[in-house]
Amino acid sequence: MDIIDAIRQRRSVRVYTKDMPKDSDIEKVLEAARWAPSGLNNQPWRFLVLKGGKKDNLAQFTKYGKIIQNAPVAIAVFMDTADSYNRDKDLMAMGAAIQNLLLEAHSIGLAACWLGEILNKKDEVCKSLGQEPDLELTAVVVLGYSDEDITQAGRKALKSLILK
Amino acid sequence: MDIIDAIRQRRSVRVYTKDMPKDSDIEKVLEAARWAPSGLNNQPWRFLVLKGGKKDNLAQFTKYGKIIQNAPVAIAVFMDTADSYNRDKDLMAMGAAIQNLLLEAHSIGLAACWLGEILNKKDEVCKSLGQEPDLELTAVVVLGYSDEDITQAGRKALKSLILK
Repeated sequence: MDIIDAIRQRRSVRVYTKDMPKDSDIEKVLEAARWAPSGLNNQPWRFLVLKGGKKDNLAQFTKYGKIIQNAPVAIAVFMDTADSYNRDKDLMAMGAAIQNLLLEAHSIGLAACWLGEILNKKDEVCKSLGQEPDLELTAVVVLGYSDEDITQAGRKALKSLILK
Repeated sequence: MDIIDAIRQRRSVRVYTKDMPKDSDIEKVLEAARWAPSGLNNQPWRFLVLKGGKKDNLAQFTKYGKIIQNAPVAIAVFMDTADSYNRDKDLMAMGAAIQNLLLEAHSIGLAACWLGEILNKKDEVCKSLGQEPDLELTAVVVLGYSDEDITQAGRKALKSLILK
């Protein structure tokens, strides 16, 4: 699949079939994330793959809990602040890694959704998942096979994004 | 080009030939950036394409000025804080947009480098480029045709990034 096609066609999917993605496919999306660029190549991203009960426990920390419960896999994406170099740049690197993950998922036929509202309770999530306080939750990405009709959020016109 | 190949092969290029990328190719990389995901779809990214003297003026604001002077094109990537929703999420969205830009550049045969050290003087850069204070510089990406040997920065092993 061409880059621009994946970039254009990828969308947030919130309803999934019951089918479980293969472990080798989950590894593929993490492998894509791993190759993102980061400031000083510090690679602050860490991933916790959750299925079943542990995944469902996340639901209580966000008003979008049903999406997490419905999806077969949730990946909690953490930033290792012990490996931090500059918070702004590290967060941009996290975004680059998550985008790699989403693009690769789309290209191998998986659907995904990048969830952010849960960050309002990031400390509680970290503790509940038994992770060290150095690990800051930056996103949860749910993963599976789409069971919803294709929709597309619009974008601002390119012209309106170009400064003079 | 396949997603995973672009993700794996893309690298930071700091030495460029004198050839100027076509305007249509510059538009392609911005178009890719435009389709990144963002929290509440707020699309905070703005782009200023610089060539010639305006580009060279950037050089004074970073110790990596020679890279900017040597590259035919520099894109100043701003975050519109007037369109802000949550700083952490907005910065991750900026990272996703920049990664789209870098992947698309690679896939159409352009080389690029994501520069961050210049953010130490982001306010001065913004003023010098005549932009509104609402626009916060988040990166400069230089663009052109590679004139350096292929190198590859390593990455941590996937195993070391996966939490338990």
